[in-house]
Amino acid sequence: MSRVVVIGGDAAGATVASNLRRTLPDEHEVIVLERTDRTSYSACGIPYWIAGDVDSADDLVARTPEEHRENGIDLRTGVEVTAIDVEAKSLALAKGDPLTYDRLVIATGAEPLRPDLPGIDGDGILGVQSLDDGQAVIDAMDRRPEHVVVVGSGYIGLEMAEACVSRGFDTTVVEQAPTPLPIVEPQMGELIADAMRARGIHLRESTAVTGFTLDDDGRVTAVEVDGESIPADLVILGLGVSARTSLAADAGLTRGPKGALMVDQHQQVVGRDDIWAAGDCVASIDRVTGDHVHLALGTHANKQGMVAADAIAADILDGAPSLTFPGVVQTAITKFCSLEISRTGLGEQQARDAGFDPVVASVVTTNIAGYMPGSAEMTVLMVGDRTTRRLLGAQIVGAEDAALRIDVIGTALASGLTIDDVVMLDLAYAPPFGSTWSPVQVAARAVVKAMAG
Amino acid sequence: MSRVVVIGGDAAGATVASNLRRTLPDEHEVIVLERTDRTSYSACGIPYWIAGDVDSADDLVARTPEEHRENGIDLRTGVEVTAIDVEAKSLALAKGDPLTYDRLVIATGAEPLRPDLPGIDGDGILGVQSLDDGQAVIDAMDRRPEHVVVVGSGYIGLEMAEACVSRGFDTTVVEQAPTPLPIVEPQMGELIADAMRARGIHLRESTAVTGFTLDDDGRVTAVEVDGESIPADLVILGLGVSARTSLAADAGLTRGPKGALMVDQHQQVVGRDDIWAAGDCVASIDRVTGDHVHLALGTHANKQGMVAADAIAADILDGAPSLTFPGVVQTAITKFCSLEISRTGLGEQQARDAGFDPVVASVVTTNIAGYMPGSAEMTVLMVGDRTTRRLLGAQIVGAEDAALRIDVIGTALASGLTIDDVVMLDLAYAPPFGSTWSPVQVAARAVVKAMAG
Repeated sequence: MSRVVVIGGDAAGATVASNLRRTLPDEHEVIVLERTDRTSYSACGIPYWIAGDVDSADDLVARTPEEHRENGIDLRTGVEVTAIDVEAKSLALAKGDPLTYDRLVIATGAEPLRPDLPGIDGDGILGVQSLDDGQAVIDAMDRRPEHVVVVGSGYIGLEMAEACVSRGFDTTVVEQAPTPLPIVEPQMGELIADAMRARGIHLRESTAVTGFTLDDDGRVTAVEVDGESIPADLVILGLGVSARTSLAADAGLTRGPKGALMVDQHQQVVGRDDIWAAGDCVASIDRVTGDHVHLALGTHANKQGMVAADAIAADILDGAPSLTFPGVVQTAITKFCSLEISRTGLGEQQARDAGFDPVVASVVTTNIAGYMPGSAEMTVLMVGDRTTRRLLGAQIVGAEDAALRIDVIGTALASGLTIDDVVMLDLAYAPPFGSTWSPVQVAARAVVKAMAG
Repeated sequence: MSRVVVIGGDAAGATVASNLRRTLPDEHEVIVLERTDRTSYSACGIPYWIAGDVDSADDLVARTPEEHRENGIDLRTGVEVTAIDVEAKSLALAKGDPLTYDRLVIATGAEPLRPDLPGIDGDGILGVQSLDDGQAVIDAMDRRPEHVVVVGSGYIGLEMAEACVSRGFDTTVVEQAPTPLPIVEPQMGELIADAMRARGIHLRESTAVTGFTLDDDGRVTAVEVDGESIPADLVILGLGVSARTSLAADAGLTRGPKGALMVDQHQQVVGRDDIWAAGDCVASIDRVTGDHVHLALGTHANKQGMVAADAIAADILDGAPSLTFPGVVQTAITKFCSLEISRTGLGEQQARDAGFDPVVASVVTTNIAGYMPGSAEMTVLMVGDRTTRRLLGAQIVGAEDAALRIDVIGTALASGLTIDDVVMLDLAYAPPFGSTWSPVQVAARAVVKAMAG
């Protein structure tokens, strides 16, 4: 018999444990150590819970600790690991005796970025990553703040801003970049800025936060920006996340971009034959550039958990692993106010930084046939490489039924298609779904034209 | 100077002519001969015009004859070609002198199948392919028929049935196969049958039409099926179309499946160096099987027209063509009653016929995250090859935001991905758009499981 210990019981960790439990004979132990008292929840659903679209935190939980235990997993909640001794193969715990392992899985996730600014630790300055964070925001909202400031306009920042305004709060978004959602091109960001303003959200772009003013009780009263104070009795941090890897770093494990753990295609930690890692704490290969990137997304966590479990089971049972994680193409999507927004692959500057010669084109088209009732505008921006004609990325901002079309481009990127290949794809057409040329093909044709011109 | 003559001014023909006119110096003539007085219209929009969703036939016209002429095309309407003399390079016309060409494009389209049954030529038995056909149906509806029978339940049959019932007519659909829309698997057809009945459409499945009863004035009064009469004072034929290639056949040109013209990757008619063809009258390569198929769809017509124009311009200007038409994967989509329906690639029997060893799995999942308001069911069926693990096809039936996801599979088929590749695609996820695993990936995982089990 052998013992697998998994640190972390959310998407990646719970997937590893569940898959191992289904695969391994009973004599092998599968233990999950979870800091909190929650497992397998949808962090992405938190803004919708806060907005009131989802009734309770319980609705966001895919599998409770009890359900995991019923499936034969030794799941231990409220257990915090304080150190990994990779030589002794032993974990120090905050309470109680150390726990030894034969094989270890690190699935410690990510944590909201809290910039080192004056006043950052004041009361009323909240991140949104765990269900406890979500509850803290809901509790703060129940005290009816007068002014909410969201710092940062990434996906979580935007979704939280909409949740705040839909609950009736005066809401300001502060963004350092010239346009919101800086992972899309500025021209797409302008469309988002327009939608924010139309929704009554105050947008302060090109604005850097320099600190937070606190009252005598240590509660936030304002966000300081470039010599000006924006009143705020609730501040939500939407600055993204960083890999939660201090444990791994202290144990001397190899880290890459943004502190994320470096793993191979079987999710094995580089340089260790008894440690795997998955989810928001690891770096992934970008399939377009070949570089490592850190992307904290549940979609990757689930796949990586599956791949890690496959590799560990093969290792224990002396088989060969059947799965590999091929990497990511940086696909992301959100709904914000009246807009659907999505992106995949590289933007223009990213493409240039990666050594490509990017050609960018954008088109405005309709989401369904222009002559059908309810047709509305959508903008598609596409990037191709002049030298190889390879497709590099795309971004979509538009009305209903716009954004999911990004998946065509995500699939094409994974397949290494050229811009010309995209033009010739056999994509679905009927008047309630679009025009004869799919919006992504209209964009591809514009890139072809820009390459020729 | 040289003269290109295009027979047919709808999607394919007009695309060839427009692209040639943009590319060729003015001294080269581009002449389009169109039988009717309409050009460049959306035949797919006709059911929506008949249903009243679209105001008028004019809304379905992308470019009028006059607009084509303003673009420098010598577009002649009401001109019917009666014979092609490929040796003399001359076209006989119904009226007037023959017209010679240097290069010929055949874009004669398709025509509704009219089975050779007793009474088929009776008044009130209408196909739906051209705008004139659509007007005839609208005129017939203005006479308030008591009973409408739609024969066949392909896409047009379904869309017409919905148009009829939405305009308040008693509507029956007669389908020879055991379930409606036989190009999807029977289990998907059952879902469509349920939706038909819920919408109040009478469905007669496994029912073969044997003829039509006409009154003394030659008007239809009933559809005869297996010894029973279904009363009908308006019959709509939804039996699909065949390539309109009698002219080409008479000229001795090579035809393939369903009489469609055989062309190479540059849309040049096999065996002729001065004749090209595009659109509903040609056969295309199926990229999954490598076989030729006949698929009459505007999406292919536009691309083939573009490819033909590219090849002809290269021929005239002594250049090399830059485009090829890679073929189709049989993607199709429709909205019917409460359902969105789509398919691509091969069904189980098609896969078996093509020599694959198909493994089929289907899953029921939700269109958006299950905990979000408005989430609804969708069914995804997927087919993979046991031997090579290659993806072969998929079908989707579901609520809003379901069917367009087929484009991921269409793209994956064009790229030759395996089922395992589909599982690892980086597809968009946020709660308003789905669950962490995209529905198509849930289906792919089910196929993987079925292959293992």
